[in-house]
Amino acid sequence: MNIPAPYLLYLGAATDPLSIKTSRGVADWRRELCVGQRRLPGCDLTLGLDDLSYSEAVARGAKTMILGEANAGGVLSEVSAREVVAALDSGLNVASGLHQRLAQHPDIRAAAQRTGQLLFDVREPPADLPIGNGRPRPGRRLLTVGTDCSVGKMYTSLALERELRRQGRLADFRATGQTGILIAGSGVPIDAVVADFIAGAAEWLSPARSDGGWDIIEGQGSLFHPSYAGVSLGLLHGSQPNALVMCHEPTRTHMRGLPGRALPSLKECLLANLEAAQVTQPEVVAVGVALNTSKLDEASARGLCEQVEHELNLPCEDPIAMGASKIVRRLLECFPDGTAAGAGMFSRCRIGTAARAR
Amino acid sequence: MNIPAPYLLYLGAATDPLSIKTSRGVADWRRELCVGQRRLPGCDLTLGLDDLSYSEAVARGAKTMILGEANAGGVLSEVSAREVVAALDSGLNVASGLHQRLAQHPDIRAAAQRTGQLLFDVREPPADLPIGNGRPRPGRRLLTVGTDCSVGKMYTSLALERELRRQGRLADFRATGQTGILIAGSGVPIDAVVADFIAGAAEWLSPARSDGGWDIIEGQGSLFHPSYAGVSLGLLHGSQPNALVMCHEPTRTHMRGLPGRALPSLKECLLANLEAAQVTQPEVVAVGVALNTSKLDEASARGLCEQVEHELNLPCEDPIAMGASKIVRRLLECFPDGTAAGAGMFSRCRIGTAARAR
Repeated sequence: MNIPAPYLLYLGAATDPLSIKTSRGVADWRRELCVGQRRLPGCDLTLGLDDLSYSEAVARGAKTMILGEANAGGVLSEVSAREVVAALDSGLNVASGLHQRLAQHPDIRAAAQRTGQLLFDVREPPADLPIGNGRPRPGRRLLTVGTDCSVGKMYTSLALERELRRQGRLADFRATGQTGILIAGSGVPIDAVVADFIAGAAEWLSPARSDGGWDIIEGQGSLFHPSYAGVSLGLLHGSQPNALVMCHEPTRTHMRGLPGRALPSLKECLLANLEAAQVTQPEVVAVGVALNTSKLDEASARGLCEQVEHELNLPCEDPIAMGASKIVRRLLECFPDGTAAGAGMFSRCRIGTAARAR
Repeated sequence: MNIPAPYLLYLGAATDPLSIKTSRGVADWRRELCVGQRRLPGCDLTLGLDDLSYSEAVARGAKTMILGEANAGGVLSEVSAREVVAALDSGLNVASGLHQRLAQHPDIRAAAQRTGQLLFDVREPPADLPIGNGRPRPGRRLLTVGTDCSVGKMYTSLALERELRRQGRLADFRATGQTGILIAGSGVPIDAVVADFIAGAAEWLSPARSDGGWDIIEGQGSLFHPSYAGVSLGLLHGSQPNALVMCHEPTRTHMRGLPGRALPSLKECLLANLEAAQVTQPEVVAVGVALNTSKLDEASARGLCEQVEHELNLPCEDPIAMGASKIVRRLLECFPDGTAAGAGMFSRCRIGTAARAR
């Protein structure tokens, strides 16, 4: 799946900011690929892009409309289905992260056939995924892991990619969820693959690489989330990560969707991830902790980061509010240029061992 | 899925003993449900059952033919497809563990529609599986876990069910693979569900139970197998097991399918499983080790069991060659009648803690 850019972002008649989080993700992280937004009457939200009709979007070079508005259930409304048909008829491809597949709607299927435009259902996994084999492969890979779902793994991954690129390094975000895939233009919806293929899908997503660049792989779920830990473990094994960054939302009172179930401690979660990762990458190291501090004031946020740094001997920052430079610095210290992955690491990179010893 | 018994076991023209392992599993474990076998000319294998035609099988009460012969690729041969049609026309349902779905073959689909007989594709997961929720549920559950794939988890589970029933206890084997499902007549092909639903499928398979009986859940894969560990972890979390039995094949030189990759040690593997299981069942205990000693002479087998018992302070036996009574004795010591699951355990049941301390 390679979704042709640039994009027109569809907001529909949305009034709930959460319902456009996919469009917002693309606008936040790939603004240079967005030529405008398409809103219907009643929509009082904006991404700050120009409001365009389909023909205007095509005139400005748009190749694909991104259906970045989701109502409850991830189902396509009839209004939106008519808009999709109009977009196809105007010469746009259409990409969707909805649970319901575009091609299942008869009018949309007919319009795609009539126009020759492409439909992208990003929740549809590739057809020929391999079974994972765990064989060591060259390349440098960083995986974001978390104490829970929805703690900022995608935003952290993208912030790390941005910071590495800013410093002139090769780095590529590898997407594993629908919003990430729409941002990257490619990826694999890891939670939608058949269970036997989770690790294989992760191997497929981050193949052998020899240009010295980093694959920054978007983590999913948590080893401690009783609904999704299998996905997290298969992704961890298949990613064969050289480096882990741990993501956490410090005000979360219980595991997402499971009132009464406490989150693991950062240390417990970090050690469990390092141990599990060693099955396919014995030299794995942790290089930082990313906190989502959006619900804290700045002083509390900075205090908490310092506390975590002291506790775990790892750089800790909020990659959105504070930037990702401290984590990237540690990453580059642990993996200096010109060395094979994992070689030449400073002893301070052996955080797993150090944290365990305490 | 509830496959009507009794069964006629189809062997086709098989000459390779491995190709009929599904039929053999059913004959080994549910002989009382097997009225006969169906062989084609050229088949020189036997399960020791009467050779029957389809009409003879129906006359003896058979309800379902089990397609228990698999060639490479799990594809249905044209010869076998014609036999399936003949079985349907004679009044038998047909159940298959093949990768290829019965209903995808046009002649078979037409015959099923014509006759009203049922087709069971046991690798097709149920349609409405829930997402796992990890909420504690009543009941007593034992899960078999392993150092690798194909080390005897299904045979161990069935031997534990048999021994518990022999002692007059309520116990039910819960199948998670195609052969197990054909033996049990129900179950869920856990490796074929969509990744997000692994834990939910395990919860669905072993729901709340209040009659004091045990669910003996068939494990899959290994937390240390880089291809399938995600399946193993989701199954472990969703099963919420009170008790674990660790399965191992002591002559295995590398992880199945992955030459050069060593197996974990029993202790390492046991501790990893206990730790991961604690996410949904904080009181989980290990109650035994099951060795597949079929490749050892008896003296070596007994010596090895003693050695493992000494090392791990757990009963160790080969449940097929030696029976499962020692493991069942420990299980019933740890969970005496009339106590809630996990309550009243002897301190010796706390093997996880003891093994870690060494």
